[in-house]
Amino acid sequence: MAPEQALAAFAGEPSEALGFATIDHHRALRQGYPEVIFAEGKTPDQVATIAGRLAEGGDGFLATRTDRGHQDALIGRFPAVEINALARTAYLAPSVPAPTMLGQVLIVTAGTSDGGVAEEAAVTARALGAEVLRATDVGVAGLHRILAHRDALATASVVIVVAGMDGALPSVVGGLVAGPVIAVPTSVGYGASFGGVAALLAMLNSCASGVTVVNIDNGFGAAVAACRILRAGVRS
Amino acid sequence: MAPEQALAAFAGEPSEALGFATIDHHRALRQGYPEVIFAEGKTPDQVATIAGRLAEGGDGFLATRTDRGHQDALIGRFPAVEINALARTAYLAPSVPAPTMLGQVLIVTAGTSDGGVAEEAAVTARALGAEVLRATDVGVAGLHRILAHRDALATASVVIVVAGMDGALPSVVGGLVAGPVIAVPTSVGYGASFGGVAALLAMLNSCASGVTVVNIDNGFGAAVAACRILRAGVRS
Amino acid sequence: MAPEQALAAFAGEPSEALGFATIDHHRALRQGYPEVIFAEGKTPDQVATIAGRLAEGGDGFLATRTDRGHQDALIGRFPAVEINALARTAYLAPSVPAPTMLGQVLIVTAGTSDGGVAEEAAVTARALGAEVLRATDVGVAGLHRILAHRDALATASVVIVVAGMDGALPSVVGGLVAGPVIAVPTSVGYGASFGGVAALLAMLNSCASGVTVVNIDNGFGAAVAACRILRAGVRS
Amino acid sequence: MAPEQALAAFAGEPSEALGFATIDHHRALRQGYPEVIFAEGKTPDQVATIAGRLAEGGDGFLATRTDRGHQDALIGRFPAVEINALARTAYLAPSVPAPTMLGQVLIVTAGTSDGGVAEEAAVTARALGAEVLRATDVGVAGLHRILAHRDALATASVVIVVAGMDGALPSVVGGLVAGPVIAVPTSVGYGASFGGVAALLAMLNSCASGVTVVNIDNGFGAAVAACRILRAGVRS
Amino acid sequence: MAPEQALAAFAGEPSEALGFATIDHHRALRQGYPEVIFAEGKTPDQVATIAGRLAEGGDGFLATRTDRGHQDALIGRFPAVEINALARTAYLAPSVPAPTMLGQVLIVTAGTSDGGVAEEAAVTARALGAEVLRATDVGVAGLHRILAHRDALATASVVIVVAGMDGALPSVVGGLVAGPVIAVPTSVGYGASFGGVAALLAMLNSCASGVTVVNIDNGFGAAVAACRILRAGVRS
Amino acid sequence: MAPEQALAAFAGEPSEALGFATIDHHRALRQGYPEVIFAEGKTPDQVATIAGRLAEGGDGFLATRTDRGHQDALIGRFPAVEINALARTAYLAPSVPAPTMLGQVLIVTAGTSDGGVAEEAAVTARALGAEVLRATDVGVAGLHRILAHRDALATASVVIVVAGMDGALPSVVGGLVAGPVIAVPTSVGYGASFGGVAALLAMLNSCASGVTVVNIDNGFGAAVAACRILRAGVRS
Amino acid sequence: MAPEQALAAFAGEPSEALGFATIDHHRALRQGYPEVIFAEGKTPDQVATIAGRLAEGGDGFLATRTDRGHQDALIGRFPAVEINALARTAYLAPSVPAPTMLGQVLIVTAGTSDGGVAEEAAVTARALGAEVLRATDVGVAGLHRILAHRDALATASVVIVVAGMDGALPSVVGGLVAGPVIAVPTSVGYGASFGGVAALLAMLNSCASGVTVVNIDNGFGAAVAACRILRAGVRS
Amino acid sequence: MAPEQALAAFAGEPSEALGFATIDHHRALRQGYPEVIFAEGKTPDQVATIAGRLAEGGDGFLATRTDRGHQDALIGRFPAVEINALARTAYLAPSVPAPTMLGQVLIVTAGTSDGGVAEEAAVTARALGAEVLRATDVGVAGLHRILAHRDALATASVVIVVAGMDGALPSVVGGLVAGPVIAVPTSVGYGASFGGVAALLAMLNSCASGVTVVNIDNGFGAAVAACRILRAGVRS
Repeated sequence: MAPEQALAAFAGEPSEALGFATIDHHRALRQGYPEVIFAEGKTPDQVATIAGRLAEGGDGFLATRTDRGHQDALIGRFPAVEINALARTAYLAPSVPAPTMLGQVLIVTAGTSDGGVAEEAAVTARALGAEVLRATDVGVAGLHRILAHRDALATASVVIVVAGMDGALPSVVGGLVAGPVIAVPTSVGYGASFGGVAALLAMLNSCASGVTVVNIDNGFGAAVAACRILRAGVRS
Repeated sequence: MAPEQALAAFAGEPSEALGFATIDHHRALRQGYPEVIFAEGKTPDQVATIAGRLAEGGDGFLATRTDRGHQDALIGRFPAVEINALARTAYLAPSVPAPTMLGQVLIVTAGTSDGGVAEEAAVTARALGAEVLRATDVGVAGLHRILAHRDALATASVVIVVAGMDGALPSVVGGLVAGPVIAVPTSVGYGASFGGVAALLAMLNSCASGVTVVNIDNGFGAAVAACRILRAGVRS
Repeated sequence: MAPEQALAAFAGEPSEALGFATIDHHRALRQGYPEVIFAEGKTPDQVATIAGRLAEGGDGFLATRTDRGHQDALIGRFPAVEINALARTAYLAPSVPAPTMLGQVLIVTAGTSDGGVAEEAAVTARALGAEVLRATDVGVAGLHRILAHRDALATASVVIVVAGMDGALPSVVGGLVAGPVIAVPTSVGYGASFGGVAALLAMLNSCASGVTVVNIDNGFGAAVAACRILRAGVRS
Repeated sequence: MAPEQALAAFAGEPSEALGFATIDHHRALRQGYPEVIFAEGKTPDQVATIAGRLAEGGDGFLATRTDRGHQDALIGRFPAVEINALARTAYLAPSVPAPTMLGQVLIVTAGTSDGGVAEEAAVTARALGAEVLRATDVGVAGLHRILAHRDALATASVVIVVAGMDGALPSVVGGLVAGPVIAVPTSVGYGASFGGVAALLAMLNSCASGVTVVNIDNGFGAAVAACRILRAGVRS
Repeated sequence: MAPEQALAAFAGEPSEALGFATIDHHRALRQGYPEVIFAEGKTPDQVATIAGRLAEGGDGFLATRTDRGHQDALIGRFPAVEINALARTAYLAPSVPAPTMLGQVLIVTAGTSDGGVAEEAAVTARALGAEVLRATDVGVAGLHRILAHRDALATASVVIVVAGMDGALPSVVGGLVAGPVIAVPTSVGYGASFGGVAALLAMLNSCASGVTVVNIDNGFGAAVAACRILRAGVRS
Repeated sequence: MAPEQALAAFAGEPSEALGFATIDHHRALRQGYPEVIFAEGKTPDQVATIAGRLAEGGDGFLATRTDRGHQDALIGRFPAVEINALARTAYLAPSVPAPTMLGQVLIVTAGTSDGGVAEEAAVTARALGAEVLRATDVGVAGLHRILAHRDALATASVVIVVAGMDGALPSVVGGLVAGPVIAVPTSVGYGASFGGVAALLAMLNSCASGVTVVNIDNGFGAAVAACRILRAGVRS
Repeated sequence: MAPEQALAAFAGEPSEALGFATIDHHRALRQGYPEVIFAEGKTPDQVATIAGRLAEGGDGFLATRTDRGHQDALIGRFPAVEINALARTAYLAPSVPAPTMLGQVLIVTAGTSDGGVAEEAAVTARALGAEVLRATDVGVAGLHRILAHRDALATASVVIVVAGMDGALPSVVGGLVAGPVIAVPTSVGYGASFGGVAALLAMLNSCASGVTVVNIDNGFGAAVAACRILRAGVRS
Repeated sequence: MAPEQALAAFAGEPSEALGFATIDHHRALRQGYPEVIFAEGKTPDQVATIAGRLAEGGDGFLATRTDRGHQDALIGRFPAVEINALARTAYLAPSVPAPTMLGQVLIVTAGTSDGGVAEEAAVTARALGAEVLRATDVGVAGLHRILAHRDALATASVVIVVAGMDGALPSVVGGLVAGPVIAVPTSVGYGASFGGVAALLAMLNSCASGVTVVNIDNGFGAAVAACRILRAGVRS
């Protein structure tokens, strides 16, 4: 294929300029889900305006990292919006629900304090059409707790492992399962955890091969990665 | 399920102690491929001994990060071993070839110097049963080069993006495709690239959501992660 | 030229000691614009006093990184001062406007959250006599958004690219244009963005050659650098 | 302009796949100079092959970061190639010389050990058509040395300041001149210079406003940035 | 012993799922003391619920890193709980006191500001059954202060040394005593102490051999480590 | 001299245990000035108690890094105490003034925002008996400002240079004077100044030889170091 | 006890000045074992001279981090010296063997490449009088391998866990045993393991409480720490 | 004094351009000693040429960080040059010896491996006219070794303390003496010493107030700083 053809195929993707933002309306077509609003660093007004534009055609929206101000602005404008305080998400379901994808996403946490990040992953994965299972507070210091979930580990299509401190759980899980494992380091810990760097480095150096990693506290990104995989499974 | 049952299911996994190493013979059963030999930090003799034990039943073996010494020891003992100097791998095919997995793995590089890491990924993916496609030296400073590969990007089941320096290519690829994207930072660069840290951080912060990352120069890990995904696709 | 002559030429530059500050009145002569007040770490009183001394001869002033306290002190004393809350600037136009420089400065942002830094750059560039164009929220995850601005990219004399997270946009822009590109990393991002370090390193390692970089969030510095270039253009 | 039009304008840029590299033949058109070969991490053969393709139409080539092996391969194939050992460059002049750009580039070094980086900048700038002046070993510990060059500082269109250790010289130069100043940190120093990080950070935090920075030891990048500016000056 | 037997011995360890947490009731059996509640990042309700489950059988509980909210919730539910504001601990004694272990733990601090971390260590060690001695504010800048405690240093079974800033005290103590020395870096200091990193690194590099280190500010971990040692002393 | 004699000479240094602190009453004898109270991390009560013990014999006291709470507690108990809000110091003069040391300490700052650190140095130096001169806001971007103080630079016994951002001023001063230069990096700056690390590294790598450095923002330490030098001058 | 008495007790410790070294002959008395020679950075001659002085009274010696040159110098002078190439140690047994301490030290490694560090620990522990057991290549990616050693884990007095890469093994071991666990991070790994930093941070943040840590690759220090514990066990 | 006068006083400082270097002949006048040649990064020829220019008038020279090549070039040209292999210095005494300064410099090392850095300091200090005393291998793990030198500590005008690993010795020395203490961190150590960073940070955070610090391994800088102090002592 010549460059001209590649570019011609690429051309025509619609976007919409709001002055402070340029909405990528073509993303749903290109990637299977609409643009998600990352609320941090935006004003409540900006978030509500973008949400309004996305929701206009009945598509609904998902906003992450919302604070109280963002949430109030969205509730005022979209009474049906679902706020999840632990996950810090705001979700408006589309008028026509997204088709459920095949396969299950199992979200595992090492400790109770990793709950918020896991919740963000769960809300996102469900919004994108995935079925979600959970295994909570099963860190490696009490190994029998994760081993008790071996059935779910064996049948899940993708496993997301959320852990702070030593970030050791993904290595254990990666050694137990054959399917894809996505590790999410969290900023849980103190002293020399350096806001999640210790867990991040441990995960990047996992002795279980083929474990992949997303940014610190990025439950959203892990869920999108999991759904990219489920979608690939559908296609192949 | 009670812990006892979980543990009973887990029990019985065979391993073999060689004094300097403990081979995990159960791994093929548990994860779909035998243990891979990471040669760095092992003597040629140790690598050859482990390879011998793995190859005994006709399984063949794969060794990564081999140097000249490792390669000579393996060639002496296994005349059929395939050495790939750029990838630094040594591979002995099993007597019964692994079944080919469905789906294709597309390996994309930003520059010529990323070639060794990409080659390690390609050798590994093929050894595990995947079909591999390539797009080489298509970094973002000349954008039309990656756009010329849009067909392959659209049809691949998994895309592995290998890049050093600014690590920008996975963000562009992640915005173009809907399926899974695995980013591999390389230690290519100088000055403030800090041996791949600049690319690693850029990839962890990719503005394209759902991109996952493996360790610096870890082409092997990226290929295993891709095959975990292909296997999940088979199962779902 | 002998050192004595060099120093004689250098001598006689006037400065004024206020006790807590030493104003460099010669800067306008030496560099084409008066000293700009960096408000952070100064009391409202100190900022207002320095502003008063600068404004005395009709020169006006520009203060950056002002907070509410600084702004109130300046408004009280200079009713005509223009406050830009997003940019955190306070600007009093000189009685005789600065001559407009030839050429345009195009300020490009990757995301909505980069808006404050871009605004600081815009206010500064205009205060120094430059014409400013904008392209907003055109990050690389939706590549068609930046490509839609190719005309402005081609005609601008200088392009300032403001981006956080993966800092990938300057590499793409640097590959598209032939003129000077100044990259501004922002502290936008979370987790392993480390307050803008990820973007900073990516920009320093840009695979597009000849991209230069300023400090994190330093929209002011980018604008001054751009005006240094416009001034050089005038001279050559 | 619609996206389609932008993309159509962009389309048709020629590139050439060599298997291990994809040459961007359109770059000269897009940016005013052909692709430059970064030799580090490439084999002598790869460098010579790329050089051959670039030189084919009489364009000549520039290769940076060449070692002895690269240089021998190039000398063997292109007897007219000019090797600069200190700069580690290999340059073949085009059959039709590039038009000389207006304006001068003044390259200033803080110490003798910064000479290699400065030389890379000088070779590159001359290859791109710029006139180059030099001021050598004029660090701030003996301030009269830089002050002796005030005439050249005043008349140069762009000043490149190369310094390791404390990276203080660009701040002093930035305070003396009104035109663009590009700072190049070098890895010269020991102990807590951390391979140029100390100088890099100092330059990013220069108290002289509007100084821009390139990667550590990146004399090539500084020269390209300078030529981008000269070209902008021509255009405006 | 075959893997099956190892796992059978391991099986049957009871845990209890609370939804947001999985309590490891077997820990007391396996390690000699019940699970300790790390309160940071948990809600007051979560902490109180876990405490309730642990206290149910008369075991009491220890919670560390509690804030005012946690403390109020625990006081409301367990009137007999002992709050230590400096240590930030909440402790409910078990109905049957733990047997006192042989040997003494000497807790040494370099400065007054290290007091909170030392207090956390003291509360924890006493809760686990150890006798605790103290030597306070005896940093190396006034060497006679630590030397005045040489008797206690000689007779203690374990010495915990708590220090911030230069972290020099463990090296001096490690040179004076023959028994185990556990160093706790604290985040006390300013500027280039980097939240305790300076002390941590100094302690890891102690010129007195055989000094071990725990995480920054981790008085709790040091006390548990000390009690692991006392318990080993009992056994041998 | 035998170890016994060394130790005998050392013995008998008095200290006083307050429970939370151990006062080193011998320090005045050993080092020429009494212990100084570092208030950060101590309660107002603790500071006041230590101050009371130090002041008891008419010695007065100096407390640094005091906040409002510490200051109120001290004012309540010692009406004659002198509070310096910018320096954050509290000083009670001894009943018999310390003898004035020979020589002058010149304290130079690069910018207005470095004023607090310089003030802490000035208060401390005067409390220890030194005469203090000042040169304020004379950073290298306007070089004539520091050159205007060449007389004071030439006659001062010790020069303390306080600078944030690029930390370039000590290199310039170190090149101008023959006597001791103590550099104090400050946390003034933003972005990649990393809380003073940029300035710290620049100062450690000063191209002017023989410049020494203290901790970030440590005006107190610089003043003590200067007085150690003045005292040495007296002795030699 | 008065300071004088403390110091008198301290006095009289013999040392011997060799010009380039000061041997601490009192250490055996103070700490239960003679000074150990750290060979790195010393010439073969210096090492042999110190060894000679230590061995003079029949005490034997232990030298660590020896290279070939050190080893040859020692073999030439002490034919009975035992060289361990993997551990890089040289050991001369004393004429009267050290009394064997009660209790066992179990040294566990995660991978084959951790063998050198474990060997240094084993040689050191045996030289100090401890009995040593081993469990080799039992990392967490194949969990059944460590579980197969549960008997040895349960009966050892101290467990030393040596691991590179993700440093996860100490967390698993720390959750399984009640006695002291000393973690040794190794520089095994590549990319973002940063020479053992990833493992070090993971171990400092171990989710199993009471795990202590020594410096990277410091098998010697771990063994000394273990023997400090055994000695404490003897005393209590 | 007006700027003109300041600059006039400054003017006329002679320098000499050699093409690759600009010699600051005025330094001896300005700072009391001629420019010292830092050999690292210069060719043997460059070093010999600069040395020749400095030595021309009978002044002699000092070169630091020389390697074998530099030394051979200097020996060939200046038969009387004194090479110190441990210090890596080359020194040619001036025809008229520098006047000896009043006061003594005591150079203390923590370990044998710090000897090279201490030697560089000693050679430099003697070349500048100072009397030098030594205390070797007296680290804090055997405290009686440094206490045995209390007489020399008390009478020295300046103490230079050279230490790697934990960098604890300057804190102990700083607490013992009243005069100036200059700490030199060395790159001695392994693992988490990070090439001297651990010692550097410990020294910057010394709990003994008024200790100043120079760059890692910078024995030369410490000696120059000490001589700046001696010179100040002469003047006051």
